[in-house]
Amino acid sequence: MRLSRFHLATVKEVPADAEIASHRLMLRAGMLRKLAAGIYTWSPLGLRVLRKVEQAVREEMNRAGAIELLMPSIQPRELWEETGRWEKFGGQLLKLRDRKDAEYCYGPTHEEVVTDFARNELRSYKQLPVNFYQIQTKFRDEIRPRFGVMRAREFLMKDAYSFHLDPASLEAEYRNMYETYGRIFTRLGLRFRAVQADTGAIGGNASHEFQVLADSGEDAIAFSTGSDYAANIELAEALAPAGTRPAPAHALERVDTPTQKTIDEICAFLGVAPAQCVKTILVRGVDGLVALCVRGDHEINEVKAAKLAELPGESVLADEAEILKATGVRPGFIGPAGLPASIPVIVDRSAAILADFVCGGNADGSHYRGANWERDARITRIADLRKVVEGDPSPDGQGELGIARGIEVGHVFQLGQKYAEVLGATVLDDQGKSRVLWMGCYGIGVSRIVAAAIEQNHDEAGIAWPEAMAPWRVAICPIGAHQSEAVREEAERLYAELAQAGIDVVLDDRGLRPGAMFADMELIGIPHRIVVSDRGLAAGTYEYRRRSESENRSLTREDIGRLFD
Amino acid sequence: MRLSRFHLATVKEVPADAEIASHRLMLRAGMLRKLAAGIYTWSPLGLRVLRKVEQAVREEMNRAGAIELLMPSIQPRELWEETGRWEKFGGQLLKLRDRKDAEYCYGPTHEEVVTDFARNELRSYKQLPVNFYQIQTKFRDEIRPRFGVMRAREFLMKDAYSFHLDPASLEAEYRNMYETYGRIFTRLGLRFRAVQADTGAIGGNASHEFQVLADSGEDAIAFSTGSDYAANIELAEALAPAGTRPAPAHALERVDTPTQKTIDEICAFLGVAPAQCVKTILVRGVDGLVALCVRGDHEINEVKAAKLAELPGESVLADEAEILKATGVRPGFIGPAGLPASIPVIVDRSAAILADFVCGGNADGSHYRGANWERDARITRIADLRKVVEGDPSPDGQGELGIARGIEVGHVFQLGQKYAEVLGATVLDDQGKSRVLWMGCYGIGVSRIVAAAIEQNHDEAGIAWPEAMAPWRVAICPIGAHQSEAVREEAERLYAELAQAGIDVVLDDRGLRPGAMFADMELIGIPHRIVVSDRGLAAGTYEYRRRSESENRSLTREDIGRLFD
Repeated sequence: MRLSRFHLATVKEVPADAEIASHRLMLRAGMLRKLAAGIYTWSPLGLRVLRKVEQAVREEMNRAGAIELLMPSIQPRELWEETGRWEKFGGQLLKLRDRKDAEYCYGPTHEEVVTDFARNELRSYKQLPVNFYQIQTKFRDEIRPRFGVMRAREFLMKDAYSFHLDPASLEAEYRNMYETYGRIFTRLGLRFRAVQADTGAIGGNASHEFQVLADSGEDAIAFSTGSDYAANIELAEALAPAGTRPAPAHALERVDTPTQKTIDEICAFLGVAPAQCVKTILVRGVDGLVALCVRGDHEINEVKAAKLAELPGESVLADEAEILKATGVRPGFIGPAGLPASIPVIVDRSAAILADFVCGGNADGSHYRGANWERDARITRIADLRKVVEGDPSPDGQGELGIARGIEVGHVFQLGQKYAEVLGATVLDDQGKSRVLWMGCYGIGVSRIVAAAIEQNHDEAGIAWPEAMAPWRVAICPIGAHQSEAVREEAERLYAELAQAGIDVVLDDRGLRPGAMFADMELIGIPHRIVVSDRGLAAGTYEYRRRSESENRSLTREDIGRLFD
Repeated sequence: MRLSRFHLATVKEVPADAEIASHRLMLRAGMLRKLAAGIYTWSPLGLRVLRKVEQAVREEMNRAGAIELLMPSIQPRELWEETGRWEKFGGQLLKLRDRKDAEYCYGPTHEEVVTDFARNELRSYKQLPVNFYQIQTKFRDEIRPRFGVMRAREFLMKDAYSFHLDPASLEAEYRNMYETYGRIFTRLGLRFRAVQADTGAIGGNASHEFQVLADSGEDAIAFSTGSDYAANIELAEALAPAGTRPAPAHALERVDTPTQKTIDEICAFLGVAPAQCVKTILVRGVDGLVALCVRGDHEINEVKAAKLAELPGESVLADEAEILKATGVRPGFIGPAGLPASIPVIVDRSAAILADFVCGGNADGSHYRGANWERDARITRIADLRKVVEGDPSPDGQGELGIARGIEVGHVFQLGQKYAEVLGATVLDDQGKSRVLWMGCYGIGVSRIVAAAIEQNHDEAGIAWPEAMAPWRVAICPIGAHQSEAVREEAERLYAELAQAGIDVVLDDRGLRPGAMFADMELIGIPHRIVVSDRGLAAGTYEYRRRSESENRSLTREDIGRLFD
């Protein structure tokens, strides 16, 4: 591409309402233009990047055996009523009426439509397994669209849906998609983690999120420094610490703590470390209150707590009146030693191996020190109750946990029979018996990837694209071309040579001054810049700069050839 | 592609509501599935064809220097209010409200959005000319969606918009697009005509429609048998016949025609040909009634009549009361001889060179014969008033006109300054003066092309795709593969060889019986079918059938190689 025949329109002003780097840089580079809240036009430059992502996704999905189709954006209410999601999906569902007053929505996702397609198209087990995907525009009516295409209302998504006769086949395709997603993000040059995720509202069984690592990410991830293990921080298991509980060394001693209620206050007052304290909270159980105990330096993980059999599927703190009624004590002084026998005491693994610890005294204005499990305090059950922290051992036994932030760009789910059951999607098996289909679904936020890549790869000067996503891999920048025929000719020769070799190259023939030209190429993030100048020609070299490096190098023609081998 | 890993689902039943061949065949081939009225899912097979069209359009647009971008489907009301089209566009505009009750439409076209983009992005004449295009999903809320994707509500369109400093630049790009469209439809293997068209509601100056020729087409086209000339039948010029008007040979004679009013009745009664009669109709003019005269075998063209200076921009027949009042005669007996002097007589070129003709007698129950212009009847003005008919001389002087039916698949317009003016899209010229942009717009119905190609290319057995649009160019059909390892191996070898050579080939490895396999390949329209069988292997040949031919041929391996050179 010759830039003189392209529409490149970078801007100097940083737009006031762009809160994150990717949004600012996409606007400055002229990749996007806002049409309405959360609705953007992709300029020619932006679209080049979007299409590269789209094509990488398509090629890897095809390679994985998935089959592309194209479903409509406008979907009839009747179908969404069948799954109950016309109401349940909530305000993100953009509803509309046509001229005959029939109701539709602009599809935010396609489980209904693809399952309807499947119930009509799939008749026999011989047609299974099959994985249908599309790369298509979706709309979610976000309350607060922001961050440009990171959280837009109209966006481009790859959504795939697989259909199976049995769970084993679903499991196999899930693994296939998991590996395919890894190939896609690796090929795009992104640092990412596949993260065990809660399935949330979509429902189903296994689920992984693919997160692009970036400090600005909305999601916290626990990952192993020694393996591939990664999980949403809410789901990461906190292992039992090594070693066993020491024998008690001190007697139980009650101390007055008239105004000290928080762990920090108690520790400062008693001169002990938080890791030597046990923190107790009372929550509403299935049958009365339940005590949850974690170490003073740890936090209760509410997702884990909610899964305890003693709790009703959610973790709700008891209020002061409930606590007073059950224990006779005000919150802040509750501890496991001497709690009424009707209250189960569930103790986190790390708290359970403490000896001679500090805890609430179960009397207003009083704590214990020298407390010990069994001798002084009941343990109903030991469980994983806490949030993991940096430095915890990795649950897979390899390395320690680190905590990182990520941007969700992909999600794979085992949906099971949820949609197929309610929509009546069945096939005949090899015995002629009707069987409800098993389903998986696999999404990639194609347009969001563009923003996520920038969050991960930028600096003061602009975007620093991974090679696979750059609008062009190489920019040729001639200096003084309007005066020097030799420069013009050599720039043209090099441009033709690289293009001929199948390298995605742009020739900046706009006739700008070097400073403006270099600033543009850095802002739009071209990975390789080759300068053609009279001085270089005299020396038989080009001035070359890799976008990720801060120094120029002088390269010969042969060096350039080797760069892209 | 191996068919065993694809999702092919042909059906036997012809759907009852499919009225035209393309709709029936797309459903039978399993290319489409209806989700709601005018809203379809493109199956994997359908999408393969759609993508081939899309890619051909994209490559030719790029080659022509147009630059691809991607605009949103959802567009804010405010922008459409600026051009007045929020109301004027009519019921086809699908309007909707988001959760904040802001109003939007699902874009049926993008003049507003692209002009808004241009007024923000284009500042200087140096950025001109530029032609932006997109290939994007549109929605038009048709009152009566039908014919499958021929007249769907949600459809895929290529829309391009060019911007210019002056009309000469617009004119040049218009010609560039006109030629590009020709290349696109030629490359797709379609028989088509570029037709002069009325600009209709979009407004502007020059305009051509690109029509795929097919008997089922909704539009009638007049085309030259000796040149590229073609026009919408309403716009085709009817030339003056060769020669001059003969001198009168007969005297004017009144004849009683008490019950004969129509041309056919008069001709039968008087024993003359319709071409020797003059038919007169009275229409409402700017200032009283106007008489329009055409030959008895010709029809008034209302589009041409409406453009006469004497008419108020439309052609409305006078009613009986008006005619009686102005002439004292009932309709059916009006003629140019002896009409009141207040009524202008506008005569079609073909009628104007008649001599000794038959016409109405301007008295109830009476006609003239032997009538002659000038001597007996006034001519206020000679004009082109009639519809062209088959056999008329072509207006460009080359060959005769034929009449064909067509399906509109492309349209190019010179919009002029209409949108740029009202939206304030200006640039600075080389004098630093603000200038309103000139615009062209250029549409292609990408999804409609698929249906139009089928209307033009099908037979009893199914679709007969042009090579460039076929889902696959070649099908390899092994017979008895489950029994014969030699057949399996040779089919695989040939499949690998053709795929290696870059030929889009499908291997039908589903294990069907030959009849079912051949019927499928004919229905889905694969241009080349190669059968691998034990019998053929013994003879060193393949049984080959071209979709467009009715006989098999025995080809050797070398013959096959040459087929796709």
